[in-house]
Amino acid sequence: MENQQETAAAEHLQSVRWNSDHLEMLDQRLLPEEIVFLELNTAEEVWEGIRHLKVRGAPAIGISAAFGVYLGIRGFEPAGSGREALEELSAEVGRIADYLATSRPTAVNLFWALDRMRATAQALAAEGVMTADELKGALLEEARQIQAEDEETCRLIGENALTLLHDGIGVLTHCNAGGLATAKYGTALAPFYLAKEKGWDIKVFADETRPVLQGARLTAFELQQAGVDVTLICDNMAGMVMAKGWVQAIIVGTDRVAANGDVANKIGTYSVAVLAKAHGIPFYVACPLSTIDLQTPTGEEIPIEERHEDEITIGFGKRTAPQGVKVYNPAFDVTPNEYVTAIITEKGIVYPNYQENLPKLFEE
Amino acid sequence: MENQQETAAAEHLQSVRWNSDHLEMLDQRLLPEEIVFLELNTAEEVWEGIRHLKVRGAPAIGISAAFGVYLGIRGFEPAGSGREALEELSAEVGRIADYLATSRPTAVNLFWALDRMRATAQALAAEGVMTADELKGALLEEARQIQAEDEETCRLIGENALTLLHDGIGVLTHCNAGGLATAKYGTALAPFYLAKEKGWDIKVFADETRPVLQGARLTAFELQQAGVDVTLICDNMAGMVMAKGWVQAIIVGTDRVAANGDVANKIGTYSVAVLAKAHGIPFYVACPLSTIDLQTPTGEEIPIEERHEDEITIGFGKRTAPQGVKVYNPAFDVTPNEYVTAIITEKGIVYPNYQENLPKLFEE
Repeated sequence: MENQQETAAAEHLQSVRWNSDHLEMLDQRLLPEEIVFLELNTAEEVWEGIRHLKVRGAPAIGISAAFGVYLGIRGFEPAGSGREALEELSAEVGRIADYLATSRPTAVNLFWALDRMRATAQALAAEGVMTADELKGALLEEARQIQAEDEETCRLIGENALTLLHDGIGVLTHCNAGGLATAKYGTALAPFYLAKEKGWDIKVFADETRPVLQGARLTAFELQQAGVDVTLICDNMAGMVMAKGWVQAIIVGTDRVAANGDVANKIGTYSVAVLAKAHGIPFYVACPLSTIDLQTPTGEEIPIEERHEDEITIGFGKRTAPQGVKVYNPAFDVTPNEYVTAIITEKGIVYPNYQENLPKLFEE
Repeated sequence: MENQQETAAAEHLQSVRWNSDHLEMLDQRLLPEEIVFLELNTAEEVWEGIRHLKVRGAPAIGISAAFGVYLGIRGFEPAGSGREALEELSAEVGRIADYLATSRPTAVNLFWALDRMRATAQALAAEGVMTADELKGALLEEARQIQAEDEETCRLIGENALTLLHDGIGVLTHCNAGGLATAKYGTALAPFYLAKEKGWDIKVFADETRPVLQGARLTAFELQQAGVDVTLICDNMAGMVMAKGWVQAIIVGTDRVAANGDVANKIGTYSVAVLAKAHGIPFYVACPLSTIDLQTPTGEEIPIEERHEDEITIGFGKRTAPQGVKVYNPAFDVTPNEYVTAIITEKGIVYPNYQENLPKLFEE
């Protein structure tokens, strides 16, 4: 950042926001050095943004995709008219949603948001009481609604998480499940923002999170901006920090929770969970209900994306590994439910047995 | 590397070697992209080389320091003559050894090699049967002897380690305890070279080892050069690789073993050890006797060097963390003896109880 003005602006950074006729997406790959908002006008641009990690974080991806659906259909002109036009429009929404779903394979929020857009289009088309243009407007409103709900959800997650923490506690987090990953507040980072508002002094340790360094670039950045006491460490220092007794809780986000409480999250989360258990430190997962996928029985069924070796071998513009070396680069890992002390949601805190307790969240 | 010739040469890379009148030091900070040998002519240059990680690995540091002592005294002209000259020379050796000992605080091989040079000078001065120039020559020979012994030591460590492994096994290692860290073969990597000679197919997983990436830049490099099947991973992937059942043993080097078997090694080793125990995988430490420090009762007494935050925040020429963020950057951690399945030395394999069994290594 080159001047104070940019720094001040950064305190209120929103990673994704609708701006009159286009989607503004903060290019998170350039943080913390540059704050650049991209102007997206098509579903293809949104697909690219998700695919190439310009936007990341399960909720922010879902919000982006929802707006992406609207961007994809707003120029669509149905051949027919009346109910037929609505049916065409709804079919087109389905096609665009299918397309956007191919941008990242793991994040269930992506599929959840797309399904919600699809269902909205189908329901309104079936009702048949509005024009095609009105249906388009309703879809834009639905995307905005998804974003507003996410902000409220994150605030509730933060309030629930706060009941497990206290003034003066040390907490370690991995990757970035912060405000940048969501509409606001974040999931795993939400309690830190709310604690700050209460005047608590929470000492946060942020794993840098190789290979893409979301912890260094994003978590350390956004907590520092907010005045939270954050210390950056390499992933392999987490064990030592725990052994020193500096952290009394771990809190991370997740990309998908299976019905049995197995948790898929950024690679390295599993190691943190095993280390936490070995040190007798509670391991909390913070997420909205939309991240809990009761249709996925266990972590075994969650597809794990493998990404390009360059992320590891040429991480930051400089080659740091020999040409041609074999590389294994999974983007996520699965933490089995036995390592998960509790799952913190907007509807409350869930403890094991997850198989029994997670479905209760979805009951009225 | 730009051509085949350089690749072929790399197979026989020695990190430190005496060349007629100076010390050649491979600048390991530039690997794997550039193979540059530095010509060192003074003790100060050796101090710099050790301090700034141009040479790293406990045995290679010790060898470098031994030659550094010789470089420091070879121009020294005693004021007196006869026995008096020898005493002056011996005192100067002591002064230079004290100075070189300040280059890195943790590596016991450094102190061990310097003490040996100091003791040689004192003994020869006390004998009083040679000239000052002859004593200088004897000190050069002593440094060469330290190097020759290290090569033999590493070969024996490798042979002993091989008895714990088998054809087809998967092994994970952290940091670089390889040929580049020693005179030849390395410690933790020695069995892989010997296994290769036997025609065994061992599958090695190398942690990249943040922040300085010795695993990516050195271990992956030297094993690849030697035709060993090596796969590079980020440190935070080790847990997942273990959970997948891909490795049946861990083997690492060490910078210092305390009398009770606590092991100081590159930061992240402790996390690997805890993960290994959680997965029921044996955790082996390979080292020469010179790394075992019976004068240090436990790991608690091993000083842990903290290094500059830039290693984490501006790792590879590009800033990846916000300006001014707090950073914790310990260079080493201590793995308590309860996580160490066995310690593999040139004189055999030691199992717990280390307090009782380590001293036996030093008996005739």
